[in-house]
Amino acid sequence: MKPFALALVAALWAGTAAAETIATGDLGLVIERATGSVLLVDQSDRAALARIEGLGDLSHASLVYSPDERFAYVFGRDGGLTKLDITTRQIVGRVVQSGNAIGGAISDDGRLVAVSNYEPGGVRVFDADTLEMVADLPTGGKTIGLVDAPGRRFVFTVWDTGESWIADFSQTPPQITTIPGMGKNPYDALITGNGRTYITGLFGEDGLTALDLWSEAPEPIRVLPGYGRGEQEMPVYKMPHLEGWALTGREFVLPAVGHSQVLWIDADTLTETGRTQTYGQPVFAMARPDGRQVWVNFAHPLNDTIQVIDTVTKEVIHEFKPGPAVLHMEFTPRGHEIWISVRDANRIMIYDTRTFEKLREIEAESPSGIFFTARAHKTGL
Amino acid sequence: MKPFALALVAALWAGTAAAETIATGDLGLVIERATGSVLLVDQSDRAALARIEGLGDLSHASLVYSPDERFAYVFGRDGGLTKLDITTRQIVGRVVQSGNAIGGAISDDGRLVAVSNYEPGGVRVFDADTLEMVADLPTGGKTIGLVDAPGRRFVFTVWDTGESWIADFSQTPPQITTIPGMGKNPYDALITGNGRTYITGLFGEDGLTALDLWSEAPEPIRVLPGYGRGEQEMPVYKMPHLEGWALTGREFVLPAVGHSQVLWIDADTLTETGRTQTYGQPVFAMARPDGRQVWVNFAHPLNDTIQVIDTVTKEVIHEFKPGPAVLHMEFTPRGHEIWISVRDANRIMIYDTRTFEKLREIEAESPSGIFFTARAHKTGL
Repeated sequence: MKPFALALVAALWAGTAAAETIATGDLGLVIERATGSVLLVDQSDRAALARIEGLGDLSHASLVYSPDERFAYVFGRDGGLTKLDITTRQIVGRVVQSGNAIGGAISDDGRLVAVSNYEPGGVRVFDADTLEMVADLPTGGKTIGLVDAPGRRFVFTVWDTGESWIADFSQTPPQITTIPGMGKNPYDALITGNGRTYITGLFGEDGLTALDLWSEAPEPIRVLPGYGRGEQEMPVYKMPHLEGWALTGREFVLPAVGHSQVLWIDADTLTETGRTQTYGQPVFAMARPDGRQVWVNFAHPLNDTIQVIDTVTKEVIHEFKPGPAVLHMEFTPRGHEIWISVRDANRIMIYDTRTFEKLREIEAESPSGIFFTARAHKTGL
Repeated sequence: MKPFALALVAALWAGTAAAETIATGDLGLVIERATGSVLLVDQSDRAALARIEGLGDLSHASLVYSPDERFAYVFGRDGGLTKLDITTRQIVGRVVQSGNAIGGAISDDGRLVAVSNYEPGGVRVFDADTLEMVADLPTGGKTIGLVDAPGRRFVFTVWDTGESWIADFSQTPPQITTIPGMGKNPYDALITGNGRTYITGLFGEDGLTALDLWSEAPEPIRVLPGYGRGEQEMPVYKMPHLEGWALTGREFVLPAVGHSQVLWIDADTLTETGRTQTYGQPVFAMARPDGRQVWVNFAHPLNDTIQVIDTVTKEVIHEFKPGPAVLHMEFTPRGHEIWISVRDANRIMIYDTRTFEKLREIEAESPSGIFFTARAHKTGL
C-alpha cells in the first residue's frame, strides 16, 4: 500500500463517526446557550449525533446554512462568527468580528455572510469560504433586522436613526440604498418567504413599518398605526421575535407586543383581519409549513406552555405544557413533526403535529434555537 | 492493520470519488431519457459529478427524494421503481412494479413511496427503506395525478372513472376516501405547495376541477368551466404538465391547453384574473421561487424557445432560444439561477435569472427532467 493511501486511511479512520452522516438534508443544530456549544441532531432518527464546543457566548445566538447544507455560520452575542462543518463535526473557521452582534444572514448564492452589530454598529460582510471581510458598512447606529433578499442583497435597519438599508452585492462595489423614516427605534424585522415584504417592529412608537422590495424605490408603509405597546401601557415581559412571524396563506400572524394576543394581518393590504386571545404574551408565533396551524410560546413567567391555533377558525385548538422555559420551536420541513426547546428541563421535546403525541425527548444543555438544514433553501431564514 | 480495517480501506477506496460529496443539499439528478441513465449534478459547482446507468425506460420519468436528501426514487415509464443512493452513486434497490407507470410520490414522513400505474391501473405503495409493497390499491382504471399531501396522505385520480382518491396512511389500515364527479378523463393534477388545493386538468371536457383538502368532506369545485381545448378546436401539440403550474403570490399561472397563452387564476376564488399571449403552446410555466417571474417553454415545433413573464405586469420581459428541444427547467432553491434541459443539443444550460446571462453548459445525454435535492423538503414535488 502506498504512503498516500495510508494517509487517506488515517484521515478516514479518524472520521468514522462523521462518515455515517453523509447526507445532510435532515440534520439540524441546536444552540446550547449556557455552554457555548451546539448539538448536531438527526430529524429522521429523532436523535442527537454530536456536540460541538468552543463557540463563545451563545446567548441570543442564531445561525444560517450554506446551500449544500454542509456548513453552518453561527452568530454569537459576543461578535463571534463561527463556521462549522457538520459532516466532520468540527469548527473550521472563527472570527470575532465585533464586540456585540445580533444575528446574520447568507446571500442567496451562498457566497457572502453578513453580520449585524450593536457595538460598533453597522454590518460586516464576509466571504463564506474564507471568512475574510469583504465589506464594512458603518450605519451610524445599532443595526437590527438583518435579512437576505433575492438578488444577492441584504436588508437591515438602524435602531438609532430609523433608517433601513438595502445593500445590493450583485454589483461591485455594492450599491447601497437608504430609506429614512421607518419610525422611532426599530428593534427587529422580518422578510417574507418570497423576499418581497420587509417589516420592522418599532419600540419607540406604535405600529410597524413595511417596505415593498419589488418597488423601484421602496418607501415606508405604516402598518397598524394605532396598535402597539403604548396603547394600554402594559409591561412588556419580553420583546417578541419577529423572525417568528408566520405567513399562512394570505395572512401574517404577529405576536403582539405587551398584549396576550396574536394579530392577523392581510399580507397584501397590511390591514388587521383579526385578533386571537392567548395564554400569555407571545414570543414566537410559527406557522406549520402547510399554514394550517400556528404554534405560540410565551414570555416569562408563562413560558412553560404552548398553544396551537387553527388558521381557518383563528381559535386555539390545543394547549399543553412541555416544561419550564420553552424557548424555541422548529417544524420538520414538511410539517409532520415539531421540535421544542425546553431550556430548564435540559430537553428537546418532539411532537406529532396532528395527534399532538410526544414522540421523543432528547437531552440537551439549556437548549434555545433549533435550526434544521432545510433553512439553507429558504429566503430570510 | 487489522483485517476489518483493510476491508474498510478497500470499500472506501472504491468509493473515493463519492466520498467527496458528503453534503447533499445542493445536488440534483437529471433524467437522461434515451439511455436509461441519470446524471448527478452539483448546483454550486455547476458541474456533472457522475452518471448512474441501468434504470430502464426513462421516457417520461420523474423522481422524488428521501428527507435526508440521500436517496432518490426514480419512476420509469416501464413500471420500474429504482432507488439510488446519491452519496455512493449506486442503485441500491429496484423493482418492476407494473407494466406502465406514470409518476410517484413520497409521504411527508419519508417512509412510504407510492407509484401511479396505467397498466394495470391503480396505485402501489412501497416501504421506502426496503421497496417491499405495503399496499395495493386497484382503482378501476388508469391512475394519474398522484401527489403526496400532509398527514401521510396520497391523492390521485382515475382517468376512466373521473374519481379522485385520498388514501390516508396515518391510519392502519389506510383510510380511503373517494370523490366522484371530478369530470371526464382527468389527465393530470397538481397540489399546491401548502397541500391544501388539488387541481385536475380534464381531457374530455372544458375546464378544470379542484378539491379543498382542508375541507372535512372535499367536493369537486369547477374552475374555468368555459375554458379548454374544445373552445376553438385547436390542435394540441403536447399536453402541458400540470406539476409545472406555478403559484405566485395570490395567483396560479397555468399553461393553457391548445392555446398559445398562460392563464392567471386567483388562488382563493379560482376565477380567472388574466391571460398572457405566449410564443407557442406552453408546456411548463414555472415560477421563480420568489414568485416575481414565470418561465415558460413550449410544445414542438416551437420548443427551442423560453419566455420570461413578469408576474406584476403579466407581460413577457425576455425571450431567448437555449437550443433545440427545451424539455424542462429547474430553479436553484432560492431562485438565483435556472438549469434548462436542451435535449437535442445534449446540453444543460445554466442561466442567471436576473441578468439572463448564460453561466455554463453541461453535457448530458438527451436530458429531460431536472430534479434538485431541495425538493425533498417540499410538498407535491
